[in-house]
Amino acid sequence: MFKLNSNIISKQLLVSSSRMYSSITARALVYDTYGEPKDVINVHKYEVHAPQGNEIVLQTLAAPINPSDINQVQGVYPSRPELTTELGTEKPSAVGGNEGLFKIVAVGDQVSNFQIGDWCIPKGVNYGTWRTHLLSTQDKFQKLDNSALTKTQAATIAVNPCTAYQMLTMYADLKKGDWFIQNGGNSQVGQYAIQIGKALGLQSISIVRDRPDIDELKQQLYDLGATKVITEKENAAREFGKTVKEWTGGKPIRLGLNCVGGENLTNMARKLGQDAVLLTYGGMSMKPVTLPTTLFIFKNLTAKGFWITENGKGDPILKEKTVEAVLDLYSKGLLKEVPVNQFKLDLESLTDEKYLETFHSALQSHGKSLIVYE
Amino acid sequence: MFKLNSNIISKQLLVSSSRMYSSITARALVYDTYGEPKDVINVHKYEVHAPQGNEIVLQTLAAPINPSDINQVQGVYPSRPELTTELGTEKPSAVGGNEGLFKIVAVGDQVSNFQIGDWCIPKGVNYGTWRTHLLSTQDKFQKLDNSALTKTQAATIAVNPCTAYQMLTMYADLKKGDWFIQNGGNSQVGQYAIQIGKALGLQSISIVRDRPDIDELKQQLYDLGATKVITEKENAAREFGKTVKEWTGGKPIRLGLNCVGGENLTNMARKLGQDAVLLTYGGMSMKPVTLPTTLFIFKNLTAKGFWITENGKGDPILKEKTVEAVLDLYSKGLLKEVPVNQFKLDLESLTDEKYLETFHSALQSHGKSLIVYE
Repeated sequence: MFKLNSNIISKQLLVSSSRMYSSITARALVYDTYGEPKDVINVHKYEVHAPQGNEIVLQTLAAPINPSDINQVQGVYPSRPELTTELGTEKPSAVGGNEGLFKIVAVGDQVSNFQIGDWCIPKGVNYGTWRTHLLSTQDKFQKLDNSALTKTQAATIAVNPCTAYQMLTMYADLKKGDWFIQNGGNSQVGQYAIQIGKALGLQSISIVRDRPDIDELKQQLYDLGATKVITEKENAAREFGKTVKEWTGGKPIRLGLNCVGGENLTNMARKLGQDAVLLTYGGMSMKPVTLPTTLFIFKNLTAKGFWITENGKGDPILKEKTVEAVLDLYSKGLLKEVPVNQFKLDLESLTDEKYLETFHSALQSHGKSLIVYE
Repeated sequence: MFKLNSNIISKQLLVSSSRMYSSITARALVYDTYGEPKDVINVHKYEVHAPQGNEIVLQTLAAPINPSDINQVQGVYPSRPELTTELGTEKPSAVGGNEGLFKIVAVGDQVSNFQIGDWCIPKGVNYGTWRTHLLSTQDKFQKLDNSALTKTQAATIAVNPCTAYQMLTMYADLKKGDWFIQNGGNSQVGQYAIQIGKALGLQSISIVRDRPDIDELKQQLYDLGATKVITEKENAAREFGKTVKEWTGGKPIRLGLNCVGGENLTNMARKLGQDAVLLTYGGMSMKPVTLPTTLFIFKNLTAKGFWITENGKGDPILKEKTVEAVLDLYSKGLLKEVPVNQFKLDLESLTDEKYLETFHSALQSHGKSLIVYE
């Protein structure tokens, strides 16, 4: 038994238990071998059948391409989906992508959490979000209230804003007025950390790379709510520690967020105070985490890694709660979405060639890409 | 009121409240300015008066020279005693040394914890243990049962064995049969960690520096209970990770102890498994702690510092309990003292020149030095 959404794209009609269901011809971006996405990703076409019982049929509204998605296709990411023939591929394959926004287009007769038209995101990881439609079960998705959210906000909520939120709230027990320091201040996570930090009453020092339009970039981050923005070069100067102490009034900085590594990080870590926590969630410089021995022994530094994927696996409720907390900030106007490059696809006129072409353009774009399905 | 020990070295006799007390002429190794111990340490002579109420008079039996004691005199150690004129020095001064074994030679009339002849060690830090005698109060010292202990075991119990014990038991929740890995395997702490680890049912991999008599050194550590001893060079080889996995049967190594830093550490950290804790308690190579970003993010590594001094300050009961646990291992024959270089002083014939001369010899000796007062 199922309820029918008249708007879905119907190619065939088939008779299910008691009603007519328009079976959907779906497309997915799949890979059966690890490598560069531009080389190994192909389009696979498959039918999404009528939902039974707790099953739901979802249409993708938007799905980003995250760096970790690329690493997954390259086979260098420790968390990855199994390659299977579940979708009817010739060789065992997986669908790319981990994050995305979906709309419910049909529900089985035992579905109580969702109605047709609801927005939702996957609760878990490795769902393969780079596709047009998906058959799943209601327990695997979290409903989002779509009254106050943009598609971009909803489609990109699970990774970057949740990373920033969990890093700021789960490790250093920061109170209002406390400071944190981060590098990669203009990265996606960096910009969310600035905003969420401000919403939580925290003060921030954000380190960014030197560049010709540095004043413009600094202003952009100040507009988001940054307390202080400094360049790598400023941060590297010995005497800069004194300036930082003047800013904080000598209050120890007890949280550092690192997505860069190398010297940038070492110089940042020197600004940390007694009993600080340093979270590493990326390594954009491709250089390791190098920290003075004395920071560990005499300042009781704790250095840890942060990986939203793993936090989600270990505690699915935590992820849902984090999403809700970020939604709350969006709804209160305390958080703006960080711009992404949008690549629009028209589902009605979609072809395999068009899908792949759009994907390739999105791959090549500088910054975070979002494929929007219309 | 006080009880008198007839064996103490009496220089003067003076009348106290109700009985005769032989005031003691004590000597201490003091400094009034920070610098190299051979340059700044001088002998100061002072009187130790009759103990009142809860006071106790202690005679030093043995006190080691630890690297951290040297750093303290150099002024480069974050924990250090205040410079005062308490002992009657012309300029504000401090007595060197933090660890030592003492014998009670006189007690005030309200002293209930100690009897004359008891052995004890300081509960806290910065007591200034490089001296012949000391006036203190009973609450500041922990009694040791001297029936089954050597002077060396007792005088060196508080720093190295307690460091090894706390690192092995407080951070990684290791169970019998679990593995840990350490560098500086033949350091004082390293040798205690091998023995205490074995006594706790743990298996160990100890990394030592390559040297001409490497087989002899390895055998010495195997005799102490080491499971595996490897050289820095062996540890650096890429294929060695496989050997380690064979040894552990694939069981993840969840604790690493680092007192070296640099490449040695980086190669050691690569052997750590999922969710491991890496404790840094020294930096003998003078190189920083350098760790791959992926270890933090994908293996959930936690890197922390370990400083017995700070653990002792934050929780004095913890230190007493650790000493008791180590004493228990000594009494059961599960722990041997790691050899130290002994420098004996005869209290009866002691002169300022002789005291300073012995101290200078002890400073120059290779390995850990213990000054023994007889």
